[in-house]
Amino acid sequence: MSNNEIENLIELMAKLPGLGPRSARRAVLHLIRKRALLLTPLSDAMQAVAVTARECLNCGNVGTTEICDICSNEKRATGELCVVEDVSDLWAMERANVFRGRYHVLGGTLSPLDGVGPEDLSIPRLLDRVESEHISEVILALNATVDGQTTAHYIADQLEERVRLTSLAQGVPIGGELDYLDEGTIGAALTARKAL
Amino acid sequence: MSNNEIENLIELMAKLPGLGPRSARRAVLHLIRKRALLLTPLSDAMQAVAVTARECLNCGNVGTTEICDICSNEKRATGELCVVEDVSDLWAMERANVFRGRYHVLGGTLSPLDGVGPEDLSIPRLLDRVESEHISEVILALNATVDGQTTAHYIADQLEERVRLTSLAQGVPIGGELDYLDEGTIGAALTARKAL
Repeated sequence: MSNNEIENLIELMAKLPGLGPRSARRAVLHLIRKRALLLTPLSDAMQAVAVTARECLNCGNVGTTEICDICSNEKRATGELCVVEDVSDLWAMERANVFRGRYHVLGGTLSPLDGVGPEDLSIPRLLDRVESEHISEVILALNATVDGQTTAHYIADQLEERVRLTSLAQGVPIGGELDYLDEGTIGAALTARKAL
Repeated sequence: MSNNEIENLIELMAKLPGLGPRSARRAVLHLIRKRALLLTPLSDAMQAVAVTARECLNCGNVGTTEICDICSNEKRATGELCVVEDVSDLWAMERANVFRGRYHVLGGTLSPLDGVGPEDLSIPRLLDRVESEHISEVILALNATVDGQTTAHYIADQLEERVRLTSLAQGVPIGGELDYLDEGTIGAALTARKAL
């Protein structure tokens, strides 16, 4: 077919996580049918996000301001800092609505085999923040995977004797990822967090 | 979170078929990370489709021209007309790359309970086309559902004695395993068995 605009849109949609070529075609036909209700608003919303979305300079959260809502909220300067691998984990914690402190997004996990060292993550910035924000407790909320736990141990080595170190309670299933957990489990794991 | 642009985009993405709230959040984070490579091109592609996409006035296919590529291709005036429920079915037939004639998209199936009668589908237009395009064979490629087969019977009643009427063969799908097939399909395949 020489309908280049439509073919092009299908190809781009198929690059989204969770969509393949078949579901992308389905989604595009749905969009064309709901042109005024969905296609145009979605295009505009993407344009708006392309212009406004940015990483928080302090914690690495994704938002629309230079410093995110959580970092700029003085009520959240509780001295507790929750370290997560990814922005999606931070959002999952916020949905659970049980943590009142601030976050630090690492941007991944240590992975010597893939050449990912401490400088490739925001670990130096984490160490700075622990000092400058007078952090008393660092909660290591990394995924219960091998890489996540390796990274947690590395950070614990850097910070021990400087702050209280805790991790989420067991209750997070082995091999599970935060973003896929229900809010109840995340809440229970935070409440039952234990000293390392 | 007061990040309205991002929340708004997540809400709209969650309305796409195949995506829920969780996968929409994942897709939006992915888009923000691939801003130049994916987010902006996708927004532009949607804008382009919103402006150019249209239904073919002749067959109901979705394309970017008033009359679609298939209807305007004289080589496809073979006298064979393949009737499908939906544009996605037409696209599926085209991917199979085995049919050289033209199509007619009904836009749904007859459904008296939902108040969908022949005038709500493009059945009157189909009857016109059979005359004006000198159609010799109508292939009823409707889904093997109750509604699909009811609609096929209705159309067959309208057209019998005017053209040759056929439907897609029913049987075991290529690569299909008997153990995973429903009884109806196995029954149909046995009834329509052929000599080796």
